[in-house]
Amino acid sequence: MTDRAIAKDPDVAADWDCPDQLKPSLVNQVISYGDDALVLGHRLSEWCGHGPLLEEDIALANIALDLIGRASAALSVAGDLEGAGRSADDLAYFREAVDFRNAALVEFPRGDFAYTIARQFFFDVFALDLNDWLASNPGPLRGIAGKAVKETSYHLRHTSEWMKRLGDGTEESHDRVQSAVNELWMYTGELFEADANGTALTEAGLLPDRHDLKAQWDDRVGAVLAEAGITTPETDYHFSGARSGRHTEHLGHMLSEMQILARSHPGAEW
Amino acid sequence: MTDRAIAKDPDVAADWDCPDQLKPSLVNQVISYGDDALVLGHRLSEWCGHGPLLEEDIALANIALDLIGRASAALSVAGDLEGAGRSADDLAYFREAVDFRNAALVEFPRGDFAYTIARQFFFDVFALDLNDWLASNPGPLRGIAGKAVKETSYHLRHTSEWMKRLGDGTEESHDRVQSAVNELWMYTGELFEADANGTALTEAGLLPDRHDLKAQWDDRVGAVLAEAGITTPETDYHFSGARSGRHTEHLGHMLSEMQILARSHPGAEW
Repeated sequence: MTDRAIAKDPDVAADWDCPDQLKPSLVNQVISYGDDALVLGHRLSEWCGHGPLLEEDIALANIALDLIGRASAALSVAGDLEGAGRSADDLAYFREAVDFRNAALVEFPRGDFAYTIARQFFFDVFALDLNDWLASNPGPLRGIAGKAVKETSYHLRHTSEWMKRLGDGTEESHDRVQSAVNELWMYTGELFEADANGTALTEAGLLPDRHDLKAQWDDRVGAVLAEAGITTPETDYHFSGARSGRHTEHLGHMLSEMQILARSHPGAEW
Repeated sequence: MTDRAIAKDPDVAADWDCPDQLKPSLVNQVISYGDDALVLGHRLSEWCGHGPLLEEDIALANIALDLIGRASAALSVAGDLEGAGRSADDLAYFREAVDFRNAALVEFPRGDFAYTIARQFFFDVFALDLNDWLASNPGPLRGIAGKAVKETSYHLRHTSEWMKRLGDGTEESHDRVQSAVNELWMYTGELFEADANGTALTEAGLLPDRHDLKAQWDDRVGAVLAEAGITTPETDYHFSGARSGRHTEHLGHMLSEMQILARSHPGAEW
C-alpha cells in the first residue's frame, strides 16, 4: 500500500507563476484533470468483482486505483490553488454535477468489456501525452504528472494489447469493439478542450497546445486501430459542453451514489 | 501494476512432501486459504466508490486487491495440486456455494464502516500469524504466504489504528464498533478450523497447530480491543459449518453476482 500513498505535489507555487487574471482558469484546469480521473476511476471500479477473469478484475481495479489516487492528489492541489479551504474530499463529495469539469467520455456507465477497454484506451493515449507534457514543464501538476506518466504507460500497454486482441479476435469480439469505438468516437474531441482562457494558459506555459496534443492522439490511436483491424470512424461532429458543466444524466446518477455516504454523515468516521 | 502481478509459487512440489492419503485434505486447505481471501476481497471491493473519504476508499480497495491477488495465486496452486486441470478462474467462477471453503466471517455483506473494519481486523490478525507460519515452513503456499505477510502487516496496521480511532472516538463510533465486534465474535472461531484431517496435516508439518494460532489471536485481539476501550464479548458459542460448505445465504447471493459474467459467456473475451 505504501507506493500508492497520496502525496501532495511539493512543487506547488515553487518554480512557476500564474498571472492573477488566469488563476481561476488554472484552478478550472486542475479540477478538470482531477475530475477526469475521479469519474473514470469510479466507472472502472464498477468492474470490481464483476469481471470475466480474476486477472482482468485485478488489472482493471489497479487502473481504477491509480486514477482515484491521481484524482485525490489533483483535487487537493486544486483546493490549495483556489485558496478557499476546500479539501480533495470537499471537491469530490460536495460538488453538484454542474460543477464537475470532466469530459463526457468518462462519465458513461461501464458498458461491456469491449466498451470499457475502448474508452480506457482513448483516455490513456490522451493522458500519456498530457502528463508527459505536464511532467516536463513547471506547473502545479508537475509532480502528480510524473507519477501519472509511469502509471499511464502501463495502462496504455494493457489497453492497446486488448484493443488488438479484441479487434483481431472472434467475429463477436471484433464487432463489439468496433461498436464501442463508433459509439465513443464523438466524445473523444472534448478531452482536449480547455475553457475560454485555455489559449492564454498555453501562452503562459501552463498548458500544452491542445492542437498538438490532438494531432499526437490521432496518430497514436490511428496506428493501434489499424493494427487491430478496426475502422476509424469518420465524423466531424464532436460532443461538447461537459467540461463547462453540461453533463449527460449519467454523471448525476453516479455522483448520487458516490456522494451519499459523505453527505449523509459529514465528518463522521465509522 | 507490476508489483501486483500474479506469480505462481515456484516452490510447489519442490522441498516438501504430502502423504497421498492427506492430499485431498491439503487441497482442501489451500482452497480454504484462497476462498477466505477471494470472498473477503469481494466484500471489501463493495466499498469501491462508496466510501466516506477518498483516502479510505483507496485504502480499502488496495486491501481488496491484495486479497484477490492472493486468492488467485492460491487457487491456482490448489488447481495444480488437485491435478484435475482446473484453473484459478475455474475454481472462482464455476463452483457452487456448497463447494466454497471460506469461513462464514468473510461472507457477510460489508455492513457499515465500523463493521467492515472490525471484520477486517479480526481477519488480519488471523492472516498475519497464519501466513507467518506458512512462510516459515516448506509447503505449497510458502511463496504466496511470504508476500501475504508483508501485505497483511500493512493491512493490520491500518485496521488496528481504525479500531482504536473508532473505539476511542465519538459515542456513536464507539457504539458502532462495539456492536460490530459483538455481532462478529461468534464467527471468529471458525477461522481456525481445518477438516477432519487437520491434525494429521499439522503432524505432517503442513499446517500450523490451530490451538497455538487461536491463542496468539486471542492475545493480539484482546490487546487492541483493550486499548480501544472495546469490551471483549464473552461467549462460548462459535458458529461452524461454512468451512465444510454449510454457508449462510449471503455467499450464494454474492457468488451469483460475481460469477454471472464468466458463466454467461464461458471463455469469451470482450
